Amino acid sequence: MGASSTPKVRPPTEAGSDRGEFPQRLDAGRRDARSAGSPGPAAPGPRGRVSAAEKWLLRRRLRRLGDPAIRVALWDGQAVDAGVEHPVALVRVHDRRTLLELALHPEMAFGDAYSDGRIELEGDLREFLEMMFSTSTPTNRSRGSLPGRLAWWLSRLPANTIGRSRRDVHHHYDIGTDFYRMWLDEQLVYTCAYFPDPSMTLDEAQRAKMDYVCRKLRLRPGETVVEAGFGWGALALHMARHYGVRVRACNLSHAQTLFARERAKAEGLASRVEFIEDDYRNLSGRFDVFVSVGMLEHVGRRYYRELGGVIDRCLKPEGRGLIHSIGRDRPMPFRGWIDRRIFPGAYPPSLREMMHVFEPFRFSVFDVENLRQHYAKTLEHWLARYQAREDRVAAMFDERFVRMWRLYLTGSIAGFTTGSLQLFQILFARPGATGCPWTRAWLYADRGSEADPPC
Amino acid sequence: MGASSTPKVRPPTEAGSDRGEFPQRLDAGRRDARSAGSPGPAAPGPRGRVSAAEKWLLRRRLRRLGDPAIRVALWDGQAVDAGVEHPVALVRVHDRRTLLELALHPEMAFGDAYSDGRIELEGDLREFLEMMFSTSTPTNRSRGSLPGRLAWWLSRLPANTIGRSRRDVHHHYDIGTDFYRMWLDEQLVYTCAYFPDPSMTLDEAQRAKMDYVCRKLRLRPGETVVEAGFGWGALALHMARHYGVRVRACNLSHAQTLFARERAKAEGLASRVEFIEDDYRNLSGRFDVFVSVGMLEHVGRRYYRELGGVIDRCLKPEGRGLIHSIGRDRPMPFRGWIDRRIFPGAYPPSLREMMHVFEPFRFSVFDVENLRQHYAKTLEHWLARYQAREDRVAAMFDERFVRMWRLYLTGSIAGFTTGSLQLFQILFARPGATGCPWTRAWLYADRGSEADPPC
Repeated sequence: MGASSTPKVRPPTEAGSDRGEFPQRLDAGRRDARSAGSPGPAAPGPRGRVSAAEKWLLRRRLRRLGDPAIRVALWDGQAVDAGVEHPVALVRVHDRRTLLELALHPEMAFGDAYSDGRIELEGDLREFLEMMFSTSTPTNRSRGSLPGRLAWWLSRLPANTIGRSRRDVHHHYDIGTDFYRMWLDEQLVYTCAYFPDPSMTLDEAQRAKMDYVCRKLRLRPGETVVEAGFGWGALALHMARHYGVRVRACNLSHAQTLFARERAKAEGLASRVEFIEDDYRNLSGRFDVFVSVGMLEHVGRRYYRELGGVIDRCLKPEGRGLIHSIGRDRPMPFRGWIDRRIFPGAYPPSLREMMHVFEPFRFSVFDVENLRQHYAKTLEHWLARYQAREDRVAAMFDERFVRMWRLYLTGSIAGFTTGSLQLFQILFARPGATGCPWTRAWLYADRGSEADPPC
Repeated sequence: MGASSTPKVRPPTEAGSDRGEFPQRLDAGRRDARSAGSPGPAAPGPRGRVSAAEKWLLRRRLRRLGDPAIRVALWDGQAVDAGVEHPVALVRVHDRRTLLELALHPEMAFGDAYSDGRIELEGDLREFLEMMFSTSTPTNRSRGSLPGRLAWWLSRLPANTIGRSRRDVHHHYDIGTDFYRMWLDEQLVYTCAYFPDPSMTLDEAQRAKMDYVCRKLRLRPGETVVEAGFGWGALALHMARHYGVRVRACNLSHAQTLFARERAKAEGLASRVEFIEDDYRNLSGRFDVFVSVGMLEHVGRRYYRELGGVIDRCLKPEGRGLIHSIGRDRPMPFRGWIDRRIFPGAYPPSLREMMHVFEPFRFSVFDVENLRQHYAKTLEHWLARYQAREDRVAAMFDERFVRMWRLYLTGSIAGFTTGSLQLFQILFARPGATGCPWTRAWLYADRGSEADPPC
């Protein structure tokens, strides 16, 4: 616990410290805003009338975004919209530079300007983002344009080396356990929950998710499990505590590893759960079960075959496994802003891409479930808890950080409700695996009747 | 019914008739056997001692097949095995030509020689095939050798044009409804059944499968369904009869179309179920639901995107669909003998390949279930019923046909039990589809509690 307290973003002079590049980027963003003459959210941008050319550029961009039902109010009092009678949101743009950036690369510019306060929104942020996601279909944007094609090919370069993966994980997960503790559930599970009943609390739904994963995997006492990417250790501890298995789990985050080890010790599970600070590529041993919840997004598609090879090496001849990951209906990188500001190096694969993990090896896929509605619901809980604590987040970081994460959480809800993002749970096994349940009915039967699934 | 009675195989002189190439091939096979000097199963092949070179060739082949636990007994009394103490089967090879064919291309040669009676087996055929499938892993055989690579590339050529598809369907499905009626269930469903309880009868399990498909699709009265590949019409009629929907269904088989129309008329469903003799590529109209059970195997992977385009064209903006198909863990054609003698033009895709149907379009995959255990069980029922009626099959066709289909049904069981074959049900929907159930629990709940799945 002591290892996880890193509340305040350091000032720019400390940017080279072991806190990594995140504060640097925050600062860079802030400097960008200043260099454009915008000292902060409250102050207006540089005055001067909006030209006809600027309005034409903006209209053109709105058209390319599918004519969303929004109105853009500019700093000189003029407004531009796509001729829609009842806009769901009014977007206030405070300065000329922001307007030009929006016209050139709207996603990146909107994310940064919203975080800086150079853009303000009147209306519901979620509704606004859902509409933006729905009108601008991914197909239009993915590979059509030259910049789109460039981004596409750049995203195929091998980026997720072990060293780079370590930095990327550090960027997102080491910004402070105290921060995540404010709005995650009591066990700090930072992946999609499972709500058998949508009125469940977040704590209940995260426990239900862990049980659901364990039950899909048919864990039996005495079995061995290897987990790739353990977060703060909740699932590994849950498996050992409730299913009597031994777990070896790896993760690249130093803070998370120390935190998870403390939890294991405090619960008396340290002899049955081994938390290793290492890359999945270095896993060794042979296990009955492989599990990975929320790591595939960070693996990088060039490395799926390598991940499959690790599973193949670590799984006994009759083993089975489960991979839980954000995904897509079709190949497309994360939106630029998410990739640059929130999750560097992350990529949500399509099912076809995910199959590169399994098909080169001797695995059979038994069950794929899309839980994207559950991720939208999980994020609603996170966002509500986060927004109730925005003052504390501002005291811990700053206003820009508050807005950035509000946008990220709200945008993620919109991603899952509009079907721009998916959440896949893939259950697989060796082709000759025995004891596969005859149907999936037992997964949904009363827990009392379950002893072992009928084969 | 009258349209479907085609009991006897015509003699060679009628080979050019509208019965297609199947009798021709049967005859060709028989002539092959004769030309090798083997007048039939009872008679021995040409005498002469087996040479050391021939035994070396056979041993080499056994090694490349993974040293299966079999013994090969040759016509001169000598035997060859892989040094296994307790062979599960004794393979009697009656002549030199069969031996050489086995050494060169074992799958094709075994299939033809077993059908001809030039090979006889002592031991359990299923056990023998399961062992052969298990020891010779698909990975070794698929693209390793030159013939393997050639077959691979040949299989990528565009073969499943509309004309070719029509001939291929004719080859397998038009050999006589009376034949299939002998060993299929009462409703003539020639696809994997679903056994919620493994002790169900085949009739019950086929009805359970049709219900399972309808429930996964959440059919509601008054909706419209388009079905690609309707077999003898059982599913389309089931949907209209029990779920109150209207169905347009297409199929390339003339005999099946006439048969299905008769059934619809007899049941008073002709106004709600339209059976069309046509290719799926010619489907028109807009529907709430797309369904296809057991057709994708015949589509050919070069045409998956085209199939996706047909679904995209035929499905309303909030529609949903289900594809049920035999598949593989990794790309690999059907074994040569199946492809040549049983299912010309068929190909069981891997999940990654299947995604070519969905990913170019606006579909989200919600659920993939692998029912391969259920196909093994279905085939056990079919084989038992078939074997109980082999005398009648012999009277309808001939002994060679009896053995050929026995081998095909038994080999298919072995394919599913060893994990060489999979059975995937893929449920998908438009990304913005509404009313998706909150969990899958309702699929397994008592039918009484089901009115509409909880959203």
